[in-house]
Amino acid sequence: MKVTPLSGFPEFLPAQRVVEREVIASLAHTFELHGFAGIETRIVEPLDRLAKGGEIDKEIYVLRRLQAEGESAAADADKQLGLHFDLTVPFARYVLEHAGHLEFPFRRYQIQPAWRGERPQEGRYRQFTQADVDIVGRDVLPFHHDVEVMRVMVDALEALPIPPVSFQFNNRKLIQGFYRGIGVPDVTAAIRTIDKLDKLPEEAVAEMLVSDAGATPEQAARCLELATIRVPDTSFVAKVRALGVTDDLLDEGLAELAAVVEGCSSVDHQSVTVEANLRIARGLDYYTGTVVEIFMAGYERLKSVGGGGRYDALATDGRATYPGVGVSFGVSRALVPLVADGVLSGSRSVPSAVLVSVADEASRPEADDIAAVLRARGIPCEVAPSAAKFGKQIRHADRRGIPYVWFATTDADGVTTHEVKDIRSGNQVPADPDSWKPPAEDLRPTIRVSTGSTNEMEQDQ
Amino acid sequence: MKVTPLSGFPEFLPAQRVVEREVIASLAHTFELHGFAGIETRIVEPLDRLAKGGEIDKEIYVLRRLQAEGESAAADADKQLGLHFDLTVPFARYVLEHAGHLEFPFRRYQIQPAWRGERPQEGRYRQFTQADVDIVGRDVLPFHHDVEVMRVMVDALEALPIPPVSFQFNNRKLIQGFYRGIGVPDVTAAIRTIDKLDKLPEEAVAEMLVSDAGATPEQAARCLELATIRVPDTSFVAKVRALGVTDDLLDEGLAELAAVVEGCSSVDHQSVTVEANLRIARGLDYYTGTVVEIFMAGYERLKSVGGGGRYDALATDGRATYPGVGVSFGVSRALVPLVADGVLSGSRSVPSAVLVSVADEASRPEADDIAAVLRARGIPCEVAPSAAKFGKQIRHADRRGIPYVWFATTDADGVTTHEVKDIRSGNQVPADPDSWKPPAEDLRPTIRVSTGSTNEMEQDQ
Repeated sequence: MKVTPLSGFPEFLPAQRVVEREVIASLAHTFELHGFAGIETRIVEPLDRLAKGGEIDKEIYVLRRLQAEGESAAADADKQLGLHFDLTVPFARYVLEHAGHLEFPFRRYQIQPAWRGERPQEGRYRQFTQADVDIVGRDVLPFHHDVEVMRVMVDALEALPIPPVSFQFNNRKLIQGFYRGIGVPDVTAAIRTIDKLDKLPEEAVAEMLVSDAGATPEQAARCLELATIRVPDTSFVAKVRALGVTDDLLDEGLAELAAVVEGCSSVDHQSVTVEANLRIARGLDYYTGTVVEIFMAGYERLKSVGGGGRYDALATDGRATYPGVGVSFGVSRALVPLVADGVLSGSRSVPSAVLVSVADEASRPEADDIAAVLRARGIPCEVAPSAAKFGKQIRHADRRGIPYVWFATTDADGVTTHEVKDIRSGNQVPADPDSWKPPAEDLRPTIRVSTGSTNEMEQDQ
Repeated sequence: MKVTPLSGFPEFLPAQRVVEREVIASLAHTFELHGFAGIETRIVEPLDRLAKGGEIDKEIYVLRRLQAEGESAAADADKQLGLHFDLTVPFARYVLEHAGHLEFPFRRYQIQPAWRGERPQEGRYRQFTQADVDIVGRDVLPFHHDVEVMRVMVDALEALPIPPVSFQFNNRKLIQGFYRGIGVPDVTAAIRTIDKLDKLPEEAVAEMLVSDAGATPEQAARCLELATIRVPDTSFVAKVRALGVTDDLLDEGLAELAAVVEGCSSVDHQSVTVEANLRIARGLDYYTGTVVEIFMAGYERLKSVGGGGRYDALATDGRATYPGVGVSFGVSRALVPLVADGVLSGSRSVPSAVLVSVADEASRPEADDIAAVLRARGIPCEVAPSAAKFGKQIRHADRRGIPYVWFATTDADGVTTHEVKDIRSGNQVPADPDSWKPPAEDLRPTIRVSTGSTNEMEQDQ
């Protein structure tokens, strides 16, 4: 049977998978340092929880058993299941289902795939892995958690060997308060319209503000004026004040945005920049305060590689409302292009730091014993699959990127001599299986960063 | 909207998830020490690759987009996708698709969920996680890899804090050679019949050997006689020889099985036992040599918690054949019952080792700074969500299982005193954020093993 790749379902080769694995391990490590619990949810949700009549509905994958005997699709509709298309819907359901067993505020991270049946293109896949961090309260969730969760993601992305990323923050209260303050009739429609600024020219957006949100041309011009404010610090406060609009919600939004920008800038970061960008709106209606989009240098064509914000009602079950704040990083969206472009690669295709050579099949048990001794000391290794000529065994290691080959030779008197060769330098030295170890940087596969791309990054970071 | 659990889709609470996470990390660690590359495959395969006309077909979940405009189900059949029901089918496809980019023998592990629409029951779920290790060659794969891959799984399960497991080995060549040697007409049917010994009484199996495999009653009796042999060492060789059957394939099977039992017994294991059990056949037709089933003490009702074997043609693409040998451990099948029974639990519901208390909201930045210092030294911690009374903050830690609470008090002269309280003992001592660290066993959540069950296990292992 001929095997062809499936469009929209990227798969990594073993050395490429090292990149994904190390990135996921690093993200999880940072999230755990901040005390976030790692959970996983089942991949399916009832269809009525997924499909909300929005744009995304037609991209939902629905499940059906191949031979669902006697069950017509229609009769089965009430228990139809679909694959989740993000990690927010399943998380909200998890919170409601398990609320009685959770402690609030509940801080969780979740790194899992999601599925959307959309047209595949660079950065957009039908199966894609996301990394989400959220904090959810019961009935109340103090604002300082907005600052906290955004700082966690800043720390997490700072620790990754990816191109520099920019966190662009805004606040829904700020926009809403400003629009209300200048008297725009339909504030919600205006926010949805201003969100199109990355796709449409300013004039077109201005016209839509008039036609769709009922704004006057003067109001539309002031909305656009607000949206042009973009600064790397809290100087946006003075710039907004200079526009002369007074509104309580605007004041609240300005104070919150300033706290988030300040809180995220206060840490010492090399490859993360933080900005207040007042055109960021995020189309989704459920955001109620802080909003953020994350962009990656050199990959602006992917649009954002992450985003999130504050939602005052992530979920509600009649007894309680669960406000939350969170942010998501698109692991596949960022890594698949970076790996395809050769910016990131794995240092080898196997975990083995050492290949234990085999002189002849009769001595395989001795080679196995040497490997066991090395493994007991935490050194990943494998034993040569055949007692081929040593040159061939070295090539076996070389093709997999294994840096060291171990040789044990026993002389006529039964005395065994151990030597280990660094096949990169050709250096071969005596070694004791009970004490030898490779340099720390050779112990495990690592991510190599290439400078061959347009990004300015350290080599082999 | 009312939320009810979905039968067959088990989900872990945060502290339970610690068990799964640590088990998966331990498995991956062992597999990597042995040089196996960790890969993941997409969760979907073309339906014609999944559905082979067997028992499992009706359990396959097929995907369909919710609003696949203009695509009738029939017209779309040739590109229909289903969820994989094991990790072997996708692995075989991965090998064929990427053969030109892989180095053989290719040694990989894969820890991912799979899906089957079967009736949910204990140990059987609609979504379940498996951990597979396989070695695949191109055209040839020496027998010693059978021993190798089984030793890897023995090592991996030995490292887990689960009840003792038993590896029960047999060899298809041994059974086939024996059946051929005594003249059973339909050897394949006989193997499939003898595999039913765990469900049917011996008399019924004997009758079926006559009716389905064309055996005489005498041949059926000798097949059953072979199947009763079960020993923890290589003494099965003499017992089979004593049955007086001569056949080349039988000899080969005896030698291979002896090598596997010896190879897996030679390592020093506490909680893994190894047996030759000549009634193990494994129904699947593709096994051609070594076969194994893994059972867990006290949980025999789950049937096996793992299994695998040798297949001389995992995949073939016209140019080459890919023989393989592998073994799978049912992570969900073993862990969901162990967690439900309280045998295994997580030591806490969050990664945090320390809760940094907050005296008043004005001092939150100082608490954040203390947390940052601890995190920079690898200590997971969180800051109290509110400046409540210290008693309430301590209860916040206690409910999550966080062992330490940090107190910083600044006197009128601006001098800050740091103290840390072990809330289990009540012990409170002065501490320096730049040097204090918790004992290693408190640093991360761990798996607790309860002796409350029928299993003899160490507590808090």
